Amino acid sequence: MTANKPRNVLFIMADQLRWDYLSCAGHPHLRTPNLDKLAARGVRFTRTYVQSPVCGASRMSFYTGRYVGSHGATWNGVPLKVGEMTLGDYVRKLGSEAVLVGKTHMIADTEGMERLGVDPKSIIGVRVSECGFDPFDRDDGLHGYGPDGRYTVPPRYESYLREKGYTGDKPWHDWANSAQGPGNKLASGWEMRNARLPARVKEEDSETPYMTRRAMEYIVEAGDKPWVMHLSFIKPHWPYIAPAPYNDLYGPEHVVPPVRSEAERADPHPVYREFMQHRVSKSFARDEVRTNVIPVYMGLIEQIDDQMGVLFRFLEERGIADSTMIVMTSDHGDYLGDHWMGEKDLFHDCSAKIPLIVYDPSPAANATRGTVCDELVESIDLVPTFYDWLGGDLAAQSHRMEGRSLLPFLHGKPPAEWRKFAISEYSYAMSQTAVRLGIEPKDACLFMVTDKRWKYIHAVGFRPMLFDLVDDPAELVDRGADPTLDDVRRHYAGVLHEWGLRQSQRTTRSEAQIRGMRGKSLRKGILIGVWDENDIPAELWSGYPESKA
Amino acid sequence: MTANKPRNVLFIMADQLRWDYLSCAGHPHLRTPNLDKLAARGVRFTRTYVQSPVCGASRMSFYTGRYVGSHGATWNGVPLKVGEMTLGDYVRKLGSEAVLVGKTHMIADTEGMERLGVDPKSIIGVRVSECGFDPFDRDDGLHGYGPDGRYTVPPRYESYLREKGYTGDKPWHDWANSAQGPGNKLASGWEMRNARLPARVKEEDSETPYMTRRAMEYIVEAGDKPWVMHLSFIKPHWPYIAPAPYNDLYGPEHVVPPVRSEAERADPHPVYREFMQHRVSKSFARDEVRTNVIPVYMGLIEQIDDQMGVLFRFLEERGIADSTMIVMTSDHGDYLGDHWMGEKDLFHDCSAKIPLIVYDPSPAANATRGTVCDELVESIDLVPTFYDWLGGDLAAQSHRMEGRSLLPFLHGKPPAEWRKFAISEYSYAMSQTAVRLGIEPKDACLFMVTDKRWKYIHAVGFRPMLFDLVDDPAELVDRGADPTLDDVRRHYAGVLHEWGLRQSQRTTRSEAQIRGMRGKSLRKGILIGVWDENDIPAELWSGYPESKA
Repeated sequence: MTANKPRNVLFIMADQLRWDYLSCAGHPHLRTPNLDKLAARGVRFTRTYVQSPVCGASRMSFYTGRYVGSHGATWNGVPLKVGEMTLGDYVRKLGSEAVLVGKTHMIADTEGMERLGVDPKSIIGVRVSECGFDPFDRDDGLHGYGPDGRYTVPPRYESYLREKGYTGDKPWHDWANSAQGPGNKLASGWEMRNARLPARVKEEDSETPYMTRRAMEYIVEAGDKPWVMHLSFIKPHWPYIAPAPYNDLYGPEHVVPPVRSEAERADPHPVYREFMQHRVSKSFARDEVRTNVIPVYMGLIEQIDDQMGVLFRFLEERGIADSTMIVMTSDHGDYLGDHWMGEKDLFHDCSAKIPLIVYDPSPAANATRGTVCDELVESIDLVPTFYDWLGGDLAAQSHRMEGRSLLPFLHGKPPAEWRKFAISEYSYAMSQTAVRLGIEPKDACLFMVTDKRWKYIHAVGFRPMLFDLVDDPAELVDRGADPTLDDVRRHYAGVLHEWGLRQSQRTTRSEAQIRGMRGKSLRKGILIGVWDENDIPAELWSGYPESKA
Repeated sequence: MTANKPRNVLFIMADQLRWDYLSCAGHPHLRTPNLDKLAARGVRFTRTYVQSPVCGASRMSFYTGRYVGSHGATWNGVPLKVGEMTLGDYVRKLGSEAVLVGKTHMIADTEGMERLGVDPKSIIGVRVSECGFDPFDRDDGLHGYGPDGRYTVPPRYESYLREKGYTGDKPWHDWANSAQGPGNKLASGWEMRNARLPARVKEEDSETPYMTRRAMEYIVEAGDKPWVMHLSFIKPHWPYIAPAPYNDLYGPEHVVPPVRSEAERADPHPVYREFMQHRVSKSFARDEVRTNVIPVYMGLIEQIDDQMGVLFRFLEERGIADSTMIVMTSDHGDYLGDHWMGEKDLFHDCSAKIPLIVYDPSPAANATRGTVCDELVESIDLVPTFYDWLGGDLAAQSHRMEGRSLLPFLHGKPPAEWRKFAISEYSYAMSQTAVRLGIEPKDACLFMVTDKRWKYIHAVGFRPMLFDLVDDPAELVDRGADPTLDDVRRHYAGVLHEWGLRQSQRTTRSEAQIRGMRGKSLRKGILIGVWDENDIPAELWSGYPESKA
């Protein structure tokens, strides 16, 4: 890498990609050669947890470097409040663009902007609305249509499809996410029985290659300007449907058995019991759902991997592969029937743990290429990692960023002290579980604390859950009520207690500024507790001795 | 009160006024007839705690209705971050002005405003800078001058003094806060040995009557517009000096004995030990300081009381006394030598407990006039009380306001459930205590939890403190290390644990909005976990069955 070349960051996210669905992470059948190659050139972090196992909340932590309880966007549809500092705010100060290609699940705090007189159409207003990014192509990829209207604003992708000749009002659904059914009917991708049928769209016009091309278009447009790009794919997130050939690369014989036991259903924690009753959980409890959906989930991942190949070659050809940090991760996992669950929401590793590969092209990282790191990593670590890599002063931001830079691990110089536990939070306030349990939104809170030994889950208003990660790595036995483990639970409750009291909101003065303010009022004539002039040095008296009556 | 008359709120604050320095609160010598009369017409709350025993942090909680850990302005000089909702934001939506006369200790978040493009000189920018108020006359009353310059911007009050013929560059100090010393020298009010000398200013030109007149001027100007006015006096805060005759109303014979014991100094908690070493604590440990300062502290309170008489008569004469809620309180207390301490900072009642009198002129409050209420009240209860009294919908703000309305107590209909404990927080990050103990700013945190039985203080990094409020109401024995009280400490630690995990930052969606969002994505075509069309009602399918290939 040339020392003076401007540095870029390519921050790639897949949506709902489990940590263990990569061949480099040990999946026995899935092929992800390009991501494996990235891992071979970078570091793969094996214990990376999201700050919340749901898209919106998790992403707002990725983009702010702060815990969910600190930024407050607790679930999909809860706006990130105006004033929260984002990745874009940080890196722009370092001279870098911050651009979005794909999904964020951000909802704008329109009320907050109005209160502060921020025009949503101004540059600042757009950035506030887009969690700090300049949106080159925003697409949340969830273009549902129902009796109450659309779930999202129409993305550019729908115009693209129309230009390509895909007809109708809803090309995202009708072409990219539906197959051809019998007769003249569509076989909607929303129906999981259709998962293995090929999507009607041509592969090159499906979402993943479209978005990859858009990323490359931005890079061409940017020219020599340094950038941080968030390339954020909707897949392998549902609707589970893929264009040919990706619909048919894998079959039931490639589906690994579910991780679950009958004992889990015998006397479950009340919150877990209700989540098992959600429609998606009941669906994935059925073998035919798993064997039909998982091969396509795998195919969608392989499609992303193929596109990674395209993109990485493009970076090489542009001559910027040696000045671009590449990160590949996901916003959370997918139960896929493990633990009798579908979707995400709870904290088993298949939901709360994510893949994370970080490639640093600089020579400083040569010592660690192809290694894995088993330390506890949180998704909030990415903002400080990028900021650090781009030359920012982390100490000056430690009152805002709650994560820590991963650069020391990449450079083979692990910090003397590293975090002892990872935290994840989940608000189930909007779920049917909250409805059925009669829980008020503010009380529908779960908190995970994990280290390498135990995973403890505090459920407000209920007993905790507890998993022994050493003796029960599959997390099949909830020991939250085990009378012999009082001390273990008390320990992790204590950890959570201290974490809950962290100083997360003093974001307007840094640690250094606070230290610098000590004793300063005295030198501006605030003379507290003085009896007479002998109590303080003469130079601190201002005007007094010289003043005349 | 006429039903259709617009309602006003007169929110009066003294600075550093102890809860027990009012005659109606039982002080044996001090005379506060006008405040006593207010108490006789309203309700006096006897267990009101500040959210932090220091001006700035406490006030930001008063003005936002949120805990210090929620708004983040942890000490004097830490800006309230842009975006925090304030009393002004709330009441303006109800059609009321929100105006400031006097002190707030607010520091503007200029960096946040710049980031959001908010012009500090615009109406919105001024309000953001003034914690939500329109400043009719902002005056923090701490006009120190030293080698590093002024502590505050010059207030209008200094121009006023000059117009009145008080000479020099520093009329606040030289006239309002100094006496005539021997020879041609000033006797500065910063030197507590001068406390009982009369300030050089005429009584009518001293700070308290000036500010009272300014309040009345605003009321005249406002005409028929309804208002919430924060009338915020600097006194009896230091510099402890009063104009005649208030310098000489009380003498050493009126000074109550200090509440302290030698045992407190024998083996104190490390944080308390260091606070006892502050200059102001060492001063107030001396009897001559107490007997010289406290009579003037009392005189300054009596001066405020006299001005209350002026103001209350003015309201009567204007015909608005029957449509104006009047609240009298303080931002924290003053140790005055109790517990070997000066200033505030820690959580003994003389510091963390405040006077609170609320007068509601409406007939609904007739049943409680002249009563006292012993329930646990927090300073964050005032914003919801005002909002409630002005007709606001509290439930719609419960995701932002962390306090509760006191109206039910005023109306003789106490809520079935009320808070079981009060919380106060203190960051000593900027103090000499932190320097001497070698504590990083983010770790210099204290948390008080109290009910009517115990007061528990969590000190990050140290053992807790604990006081038995029933057997030791003077709080002379710290039982934080008493081995027989493990269960007590565990109980209050548990209370604090739950409090620390409260959902305080989800300020962009209300409880009702969250409840209303449940299940809504399904009706916008987000069909999760569906196997085939039998899994959901036909009307939720959008377009699909009718779509043609």
